[in-house]
Parts: sequence; C-alpha cells; structure tokens
Amino acid sequence: MRTLVSELSSKIGADVTVCGWVHRIRDLGGVSFVVLRDRSGTCQLVFNTKPDVTLESVIRATGTAAANEKAPGGVEVRVTGMELIAAAAPDLPFPVNQDPSKTSLESILDHRMISLRNPAILSIFRLQATILQAFADHLRSEGFTEIKTSKLIGSGTEGGTGLFAVEYFDSRMYLTQSPQTFKQALIASGLERVFEIGPAYRAEKHDTPRHINEFVSLDVEMAFIDSEQDLMDLETRILEAIFAAVQQGNHRELEVWQASVPDPARCARIPRLSYDEALKVVATATGRKVYEIGPEGERALCEWAVRTAGIEAVFVFAYPRKSRPFYTAPAENNRTKSFDLLFRGLEVTSGSIRINSYDLQVENLKAFGLDPGGFTDYLSIFKYGCPPHGGFAIGLERLTQKILGLASVKEATLFPRDRKRTRP
Amino acid sequence: MRTLVSELSSKIGADVTVCGWVHRIRDLGGVSFVVLRDRSGTCQLVFNTKPDVTLESVIRATGTAAANEKAPGGVEVRVTGMELIAAAAPDLPFPVNQDPSKTSLESILDHRMISLRNPAILSIFRLQATILQAFADHLRSEGFTEIKTSKLIGSGTEGGTGLFAVEYFDSRMYLTQSPQTFKQALIASGLERVFEIGPAYRAEKHDTPRHINEFVSLDVEMAFIDSEQDLMDLETRILEAIFAAVQQGNHRELEVWQASVPDPARCARIPRLSYDEALKVVATATGRKVYEIGPEGERALCEWAVRTAGIEAVFVFAYPRKSRPFYTAPAENNRTKSFDLLFRGLEVTSGSIRINSYDLQVENLKAFGLDPGGFTDYLSIFKYGCPPHGGFAIGLERLTQKILGLASVKEATLFPRDRKRTRP
Repeated sequence: MRTLVSELSSKIGADVTVCGWVHRIRDLGGVSFVVLRDRSGTCQLVFNTKPDVTLESVIRATGTAAANEKAPGGVEVRVTGMELIAAAAPDLPFPVNQDPSKTSLESILDHRMISLRNPAILSIFRLQATILQAFADHLRSEGFTEIKTSKLIGSGTEGGTGLFAVEYFDSRMYLTQSPQTFKQALIASGLERVFEIGPAYRAEKHDTPRHINEFVSLDVEMAFIDSEQDLMDLETRILEAIFAAVQQGNHRELEVWQASVPDPARCARIPRLSYDEALKVVATATGRKVYEIGPEGERALCEWAVRTAGIEAVFVFAYPRKSRPFYTAPAENNRTKSFDLLFRGLEVTSGSIRINSYDLQVENLKAFGLDPGGFTDYLSIFKYGCPPHGGFAIGLERLTQKILGLASVKEATLFPRDRKRTRP
Repeated sequence: MRTLVSELSSKIGADVTVCGWVHRIRDLGGVSFVVLRDRSGTCQLVFNTKPDVTLESVIRATGTAAANEKAPGGVEVRVTGMELIAAAAPDLPFPVNQDPSKTSLESILDHRMISLRNPAILSIFRLQATILQAFADHLRSEGFTEIKTSKLIGSGTEGGTGLFAVEYFDSRMYLTQSPQTFKQALIASGLERVFEIGPAYRAEKHDTPRHINEFVSLDVEMAFIDSEQDLMDLETRILEAIFAAVQQGNHRELEVWQASVPDPARCARIPRLSYDEALKVVATATGRKVYEIGPEGERALCEWAVRTAGIEAVFVFAYPRKSRPFYTAPAENNRTKSFDLLFRGLEVTSGSIRINSYDLQVENLKAFGLDPGGFTDYLSIFKYGCPPHGGFAIGLERLTQKILGLASVKEATLFPRDRKRTRP
C-alpha cells in the first residue's frame, strides 16, 4: 500500500512505502539523504549507504516514517528497502531540481518534456488547473451551459486574415480564431447562456512575450443583456471566483513564485474607463499625446488603477469602431459597445455587445469590406430572431502569466507554439 | 424584472414579464395562444387578439400569471402588453417546433444554425454538458489535474497516417489524433494523474453513422498502476458518476428521447472478456467463425452482456499487438495490455497500459516500421525515469449518442465535420 508524501506526517512510527522520482541526492559518507518527489510533494529519505540511483529515476522505498524537525515537512523515511522502478539515464538535459530562473526560456522550452518536471515550472500548471475549474464552476452556478464547437471552419469570422489553413481532404479549411459564430448560434438557439473552453489560433507573426499562435480561450456568451456594463459585471464575478479559488487551493504555487492574487473582495472596485478617458490617463502618465493604448499604455493604466482603486486591473470600454471586429455593436460617435480588461499591465479579455439585427449585420459586413454572401450561415442566426447579447473571451495563458508574474506567456503554456517553435 | 418560464408556477396571480422565442401560434378567433420558449422551458401565453408576430421572433410579454390545468405546466400568462425584441423572417428554413425524427439528418445538419433551436435537438447538448462536468468533477475527486495541450504537432504519434496537415508559416504541422504524447509527458513530470478534454482529429475517409473527422476526446492518464484492470476500474467509477449525474440532472432530456442510462449501481457488473473470449461470444452469436470483432460483433457482445450481466456494456481486453498503437504495452502471446469499452453496441473507449521502458519503446517503434530518430522528444520521457502508467480516451459524442439512442454520432455533435461537411 503506497503512502503519498503528503500523508507521511500522519504515519510517524509506522512502516511505509513511498514511490516517486529521485529529486536530489546528498551523500554524507555514512549516511545518504535522498529527496523523493511524488504528486503530493517532496520528502527526505535516509539511507545508511549511498543508494545506486541516478537523479530522476523512479523508485519505491520502504522504511519507517520518523519525525525529524530538520527534515522538510518535519518527517523523513528511514529506508530499509528500495526498488528501482525506472532508471533515468545519467545525462539529464535539464536541471530539474534547480531554480528555473537561472535557465533561459529557450532552454526550458527546448527541453519541455523534462523541464516540466521542475517543481516550480510544474506548479504553473497546477494553478492553471484551478483557473479552469473555477471558471466553469462559476458559470454553471449562473445557469450557463458548456459547449464544444468545431475548431475547423470554411472561412474566418474576423474576415479571413490571420488564419491557419488546413488541408481537409480535397478542400481547404481554417483553424478558428474564436468560437464566435458558434457561441452566437447557441445563445440564439435558446440556451441563452453558454461557455466554451477550447483552443484558438492566430496566424500572426508577432514574436513577443505576450503572443502565442495557439492559446486556450475561456469563452462566454450571454443573451438578454443590453449593455457592456452587464458583461463587465459578469467578468467581475468570474474573477472573484477564480481569485478566491486560487487563494484557497494554490498557496504553495503562489509561494513558489512569490506571487499573490488580488483580494477577491476588491474586484468590485475595478475601475471602468471609457477609451477616451483611458487615452487621457495614458497621456498624463507618459507625458505625451497618444493615439492608441498600446503595451506601454496598458501598463500605465494598471498602475493608475492601483493608485486610484487599490487593484491592478482596469476595464476600458467604448473602443473605436475601426479597432473592433465587424460583429461588435456600434455606439455613438463611431464608438462601440465593447470593452477590454487590462490586468497587471496586459490585456487579458476582450468582449462586446454583438449586433443582433440582421439588417445592421449585413450593413456592417459591407462597411468592413466583407461580402455578406460569404456569411449566409452566420446571418441566418440573426434573420430568424436573435435576442440582444454579448460576450467575451479570457486568455487562459495570459491570466496565468499575470497571476504568477511570469515574464512570458509561453511559460504559462504547456507546449507553446510560435512562429519557430513547433516541438515538442 | 424578467421571470423565467420555470419560475412561473411560483408567481400565480402576480404581474410578470417573460422573454423568449415564439415557439408556436394558435389562433382561435377571439383568443390566441402563443407558446413561448426560453432557456428554462416553454409556457403558454394568452392573447385577446392575434399578435402580429412570426415564429421564432423574440418577444417580451407582460401580463398576469394564472393557474390553468389545461396549460402545459399548469400555468399560463394572460398577456396585457407585448414588445417585439427581434423579428424573425417568415421563411423559416427548418421546422423548429416539430418532431425532428420527421426530418432527414442531412436537412438537420444543413440548417444547423436553426435546427439547434428545436428543443429535442438542443436537449442532446444539454445532456452532453452534464457528461463534461461529471467527467471532470469525478477525476478531480481522485486527484487528477486538468491539462490543456497543443493540438498541433510536427508528426503523428500513431506514425503519421490519418493526419490533417496545417500550413504553419513556412512549415507543415499536423492536427493531433490524441494528446497521447503530452499526457505521457505530464504523468512523468510528477503530476501522475491527468485528464484533458479537447478536440482530436482523424483524417479518415469513413462515412458511417459512427465516424466523424473531429471529435471531443475525454482523455485520462494515470501513473503507478500495473494492469489494465486498474484502468477498467477507474473507467467504471467515471461511468457511475456520469450516469448518476445524467439521471439526476437530465430527466427532461432523457424523456424527450425516451432514453435511460444504465443504473449506476450496476456499472460494477460490466463484464470483462479477453479478446479471444469475445471472439468466441461473437462466433456463437453470429453462427460463424470471426477473425475480428467488427461493428456486428460489438452489437452481439453488448447483447450478450445484457443477457449475462444485466447491463448493456462490456470491457474487452488483451487485443492483439498488431491492432493497437506502438506505445501499447505488450503482453504474452502477441497480445497487449489494452482494452476497449463497448456500450450499446459501439466502442466508446480505447485504452491501455503504455510502454514505460526506453529500450522497449525504441524496439517497438522499429517493430512498427517507425524511425526512433523521429521520436527524440517522446523518447526523452522514458529515458529519464518514467513510472508504469496507462490511460484511455472516451469519445464524448459516441457516449452522448449511445445514452440517447441516436442513430448517428453526427446528431451528438454541435457542428460535425466529415469528408463533405465543412459548414456551418
């Protein structure tokens, strides 16, 4: 019967069997200490002779659990027998048991199969799993239905640019940039409230710490609302739920990265600035007139939010029409019923009220230089009775990155894909 | 303040406002009945004059909730005011308010944007959402971590056949057939137990009621197990959780399709037959010697399971080596440590213990005619200490299909993709 490392402190004095990876070996002559790693943590094994084993080998050790206040966790296993389950070759290509900040991002990603064993690196994805669960749980609690839609489409919802082409039997399809079309079909079907967690693709040549070509999109769409303020209210409740779940379930992961989430109780204070107001804040902060927000502006706005509201996030709404996709509901003065959420200096969400009128949708497609004839399926959603609605998408990797304070979004992606990175 | 249809019975005598789609109109001269559909159900609206509104238009109606035992649900709204929120064109291309069994599958899928409004059709995906939740919740309760891995790979885990190619900047990538490689990297990272819900792709030219080219794979991988029996035990517990959740949460959906799930308490009785035993059962049932199980055999085996164990499911294990992927752990007599789950006549799961030895993996790749040099990243998982492990994948759409007794897996797919179907 296997004992997990996390259970050892309740087994003091008992015979136990632990299994896991050899994380560290320290030979003191008469006695050897081995740090064993399993899914629940690490513990110290004490051997009377140096065990014949390499780092990262998988072993099963039997012995007695003993209290030792000098051992990590206050407990160690005095080993009486060891079985080698799977030996590791001695030429380990990545330092699993060292601080990853000493290794370049390139090396971490080149050796991804092994670098994921590093506890600090792996902890990123333990925390990410909490985000996935909290997002879905919260939306279900508000009556949203989870959907799974196709990632292959005949043409682009955003107009055909920035799409990866797929050789699909004798034709060509494209990887979706978002489930936008499908989310809208489903709120109009009568579900009214849907969410989807799935991959999304952008064939953009950016090579920055904030871009990846494949990401996980946390998508939400909701009917019978009139204003983008309703969407910001919903996102606020989602963020409260995510931050609370991370606070409760990821102490260790936050500690490893010396990170913290905003106080969930403060989310309701996230300021909401119109785009024009936001430009003024950026202009004041940077000391020059600006014509778009940009990465520097996103940082300045979040710093402003900390000063004025005590939280590192800000909603910006009413973006200009030309900067938003064609399906975005227009507002006065060439503005739109749209919003972004900036968090710790980075855009992590984009959303809007959508056009729900057939005639306006046709008109807007033309205004964007798109042919309504190529959007027959999409337009049928609006032709046959579609309620007012809107939605948004949160980038899972960007939110993970910013919660933990990681330098690049690629660190928050299990197997990131960028222009040059196509493996492992 | 909007009242949902499902809340009306608690509002008898009160003034209410309901919103939704015009599902049906019946004009009796002096009085008109309109069935209104919202996300929670349908209700009867009573108008003193015929409302000027088309089917599927979205309306807001105010009036008084009144008990009427002849009305569906025992309550109706006597309307005093109506607002047209979004008019529907009168040429509705699909009969939303009729029994979909009278419409061909081709028509249902050609008009997918509208056919999803049909309550019977939409109910399929309400039930599917329960499966998604129950699967994830159960695995979390057993200490599994949710992962999200890339759907783009440089070459195929199964050896390169049956893959869709993607034009990826200046190179070529492929859509993953399964997250196999990535799941294995993550159990070896120290997570030990992982699950993933994501799309998977098969570039196969099948055109049958059981095949689609894009599906949602419910993937599981687990370390520190020795036998495929452990995996069948785990899948049994998952099925119990899913069936219990559907029984509890989807009365209405099951009723619409006159379907039921197996009694969760009987899942532990699911028989386990070796492949050789299964062939004998099929031979007896069909009256002739068979050399593989095949679709007819899958049906015969499930009928046998009903007769002998009172449940419409059977595990078949120890498949021949040549019929399983290269990473499957071999067993005696050219068999493998593999299994399938057949449910109501259809394979819904395939799984196995995987090879965890580097040397055996290299040897097996060669035996399958594959070049180990093309699998360097994959092989590094085993080179540096990988515990014994195994896993399986459940096809979400097939499981949904079989729970509801649908004729084709495409009915259980929101936007199915097959060789010819690339829209909507």
